[in-house]
Amino acid sequence: MTGEHAGSECVMGMDLGGTKINVAAVDRKGAILIERSYPSPSHDGNLMVSAFEEHARSESEGYAAEGLEVRGVGIAAAGYVLKDKGVMVEAPNIAWSAAPLRSIASEATGVPAFLDNDANAAAAGERLVGVARGIDDFVYLTLGTGIGGGVYANGSLLRGHRGMGAELGHMVINPSGPECGCGRRGCLEVFASGTALGRHGSQLVAGGKDTLLLELAGGDPDAITGRMVAAAVEEGDEVAARAMDTWAGYLATGIVNYMHVFEPEIFVLGGGVSESGHLFIENVRAKVLKQGIEAIVADIPVLISELGNKAGTIGAAALAWEGLSESR
Amino acid sequence: MTGEHAGSECVMGMDLGGTKINVAAVDRKGAILIERSYPSPSHDGNLMVSAFEEHARSESEGYAAEGLEVRGVGIAAAGYVLKDKGVMVEAPNIAWSAAPLRSIASEATGVPAFLDNDANAAAAGERLVGVARGIDDFVYLTLGTGIGGGVYANGSLLRGHRGMGAELGHMVINPSGPECGCGRRGCLEVFASGTALGRHGSQLVAGGKDTLLLELAGGDPDAITGRMVAAAVEEGDEVAARAMDTWAGYLATGIVNYMHVFEPEIFVLGGGVSESGHLFIENVRAKVLKQGIEAIVADIPVLISELGNKAGTIGAAALAWEGLSESR
Repeated sequence: MTGEHAGSECVMGMDLGGTKINVAAVDRKGAILIERSYPSPSHDGNLMVSAFEEHARSESEGYAAEGLEVRGVGIAAAGYVLKDKGVMVEAPNIAWSAAPLRSIASEATGVPAFLDNDANAAAAGERLVGVARGIDDFVYLTLGTGIGGGVYANGSLLRGHRGMGAELGHMVINPSGPECGCGRRGCLEVFASGTALGRHGSQLVAGGKDTLLLELAGGDPDAITGRMVAAAVEEGDEVAARAMDTWAGYLATGIVNYMHVFEPEIFVLGGGVSESGHLFIENVRAKVLKQGIEAIVADIPVLISELGNKAGTIGAAALAWEGLSESR
Repeated sequence: MTGEHAGSECVMGMDLGGTKINVAAVDRKGAILIERSYPSPSHDGNLMVSAFEEHARSESEGYAAEGLEVRGVGIAAAGYVLKDKGVMVEAPNIAWSAAPLRSIASEATGVPAFLDNDANAAAAGERLVGVARGIDDFVYLTLGTGIGGGVYANGSLLRGHRGMGAELGHMVINPSGPECGCGRRGCLEVFASGTALGRHGSQLVAGGKDTLLLELAGGDPDAITGRMVAAAVEEGDEVAARAMDTWAGYLATGIVNYMHVFEPEIFVLGGGVSESGHLFIENVRAKVLKQGIEAIVADIPVLISELGNKAGTIGAAALAWEGLSESR
């Protein structure tokens, strides 16, 4: 009982990624008290489950040794979750299937555990400590390699019947668009993810324009990424600015569609691309106003996430705090 | 205290349409005990409000005279509703704006009143007594002149922050599609409503095909309606069948998009076109399976509404029963 946090209550947030397992002790206000990171043996499902169990046990023991009172565990990972069973069905970046993470974590720590996908967790984190604090109706889109979604309606996460809902990246917005990883054509994800931002750049450059993008990509138009487009826009590159404008138009279409569906109080953009939010947020807002039904969209602010790369661990912890308060 | 229903509890369901005001006494199981219909002075907002108030008062007095115990009033109308204020902001088919229907009904009857748009009401009715009985997560699409939507998530209607959510007809699915009444291009509504079914017929006929549709439309391709297409399909007309197949493909795109968003337990189709459900439901189901992410869509039945033209009054009554049980 000697640590600086002795006597404090916390939950453990576990963010399971393809390269790292981040674990943190997080208090009720969303502050990170202790945080550690481990390599993720994501190529091997059995190793991954063992590592998960081991870190859950040892971290929870470590927190207790610091005098922290661990109340619950929240777990966030990309993939499909069965909400009633606490099972991760499958994941795009970790080689496990039907992994019963909730019961494993609960047995390893002796406290209740809560499992959800990474986008739902990030939305929960945004509500605990980010731009959606105290807001009952909002939509959160993660813009990264793909597009993920988390939605609060009437103060609860929209999980769907079995827990696979809020797949907001896989709404077809143009059936003649590029093929998507899900097998369809023209999903929002292929037009408006971070990856898509890079592709809009590649397409313009392939048209033979003179641009910083080609230099950043080592002369290969196909190697242009969303990050390169953002960097070139910062430098005033016009081709990159046009790529970002095209991308922003598709993103606005997705945002407007979801505003019409959910009529949220606010709309939040997170994920890697949101770090460059200052470059596009005003443009996206203007396009949303132009495209949407005025009575619905005019009063809905579009905001950038405040959590950045802490969204995973804080989000996982937020799931636990929320789950504990609901099960009381 | 002499009527056949003497001593029974009921609510009053009021369905406000552009041509008729339907009012019914509905019991807790969704059975209609008494029902009357009045003309709707929808062209004049003030007359409409007076008629609404008068019918609310006289019907409620009539129910009481029959010995019924009226517990509440449910009101359904097309248009935008402010949920906290009980105000109908504007309606496509009635000339009123900012009409405080909830307080008018409550004062006229002396019991609590509940107001929502017609698609939300129809979803509530489907949950009380139709195909969605007892189901906490489902999506309801009305396919008529336009497309409306009602969604239950976690057992509650998805209303949005102010009450304007679940505008499921206004999701862009193809930005190069026809113009929509909302001002955008290519909303689901312009591809998959009842009106759109007629338009798919018109387009094929304009191509010069020999078909029963032309006869039904008096020789004018532009006069072809969704009803005519359905009638011609019944008669084995091949051009009409092709029009319906095209329409079903767009409808399936909308259904799949919303299955990915909501992962409902069931998906319900209502509205005028659903009366011809036997002609297209199997085709729509097959297209949904082909288009969607298997892990999500494979287990979600697509069903046809059971309420038909009673959806409005029963739905309005269901809003009242639901509101009364929530406010307890």
